[in-house]
Parts: sequence; C-alpha cells; structure tokens
Amino acid sequence: MQKNEENTSDNSVFIGKRPTMNYVMAAMVILNRGTECTIKARGRAISHAVDVAEILIHKFFPSAKYKDIRISTEHLTNDDGKQSNVSSMEIVISPN
Amino acid sequence: MQKNEENTSDNSVFIGKRPTMNYVMAAMVILNRGTECTIKARGRAISHAVDVAEILIHKFFPSAKYKDIRISTEHLTNDDGKQSNVSSMEIVISPN
Repeated sequence: MQKNEENTSDNSVFIGKRPTMNYVMAAMVILNRGTECTIKARGRAISHAVDVAEILIHKFFPSAKYKDIRISTEHLTNDDGKQSNVSSMEIVISPN
Repeated sequence: MQKNEENTSDNSVFIGKRPTMNYVMAAMVILNRGTECTIKARGRAISHAVDVAEILIHKFFPSAKYKDIRISTEHLTNDDGKQSNVSSMEIVISPN
C-alpha cells in the first residue's frame, strides 16, 4: 500500500512521511523540465500535500500556478482482506 | 485560534476535532436550504475536511457537486507572539 510513497513517476510526486522539503525539491525538478507536476496524497498525508504545494508555489517557484485540485475516494484492500475507503487528493501545478 | 472550529457561520462549516458525522450533518443542513456550503479547515484538519466532503457527497447528498476547491496559506500569530504559517483549505459544495 505504501510502495509508491516516495516515488516520482510520470510527473507525479507521492506524499509520504519524509520531510516536506524532499517533496518540494522533487516537484521542482519536474516543474523545471517545463512539465506539469501532480502532487498526490492519501489519508492523513493530504494535509502534508497541501503544505508541500503551498511552500513550493510561495517560496520556491513563484511562476507556478494551481491548475486543478481534485479530491476523491479510493477503495483499498488491506493485508487482511478488509475493504476500506480512504480519501485522496491530487494537486496539479503548472510551471507558468 | 481554535474558537471557530465547530461553528457554522455564513454557510461555512469549520472542521475541528469532533467526529466526522457531526460535520457531515452540519453541511447537510446548509445544503438542504438550497444554498452552497463551504467546508473550511486548517493544518492537520485538512485531511479530515476531505473525508467530510467525500462522505457527504458519496453517501448522503448524491446530487451535490464540488464547485471549487481552494488552498492557501494563513499567517497566524501564536499566543506567545510568534508568527506561523499554516495551510488552509476551502471546499465549496453546491447542492445540485
């Protein structure tokens, strides 16, 4: 379930438990390529994702803008076979 | 700082530490008037706000739709005079 949490694949940054600045830097690398960056998080990491996005835009990449903010529910199966619903969020940031 | 957390004023629901369903019900009362409802949260309560919105829309008020999702940073002054930045979120839901 937590496999992707520090991955950056296809211009996405998955927010996990590492320090905020790790994710800010990962997002900057993507934006510096001139491509859009999507910050993704689930459950409690959603608050952290908002922090990452706000610090990125206000302190490190002022030309960047929010392009889309989506929230949804994912249906996950735990290791013991139980279904659970978890909220998720995707913040799409464009470099300019 | 936490004074407004369970308030519902001007069609807003401020998310605090009460059970999720309290906020879902408060939002339903507003939507049932036919008016838009804004779910607001700061800091760690942001994840909770997303849960409230998702449960509201998927389980209790299927006609409702997300109209706008905004994130921003608020500059607060603590009791000891220190400035701190905290992320905040507003989810605007329309009844249909």
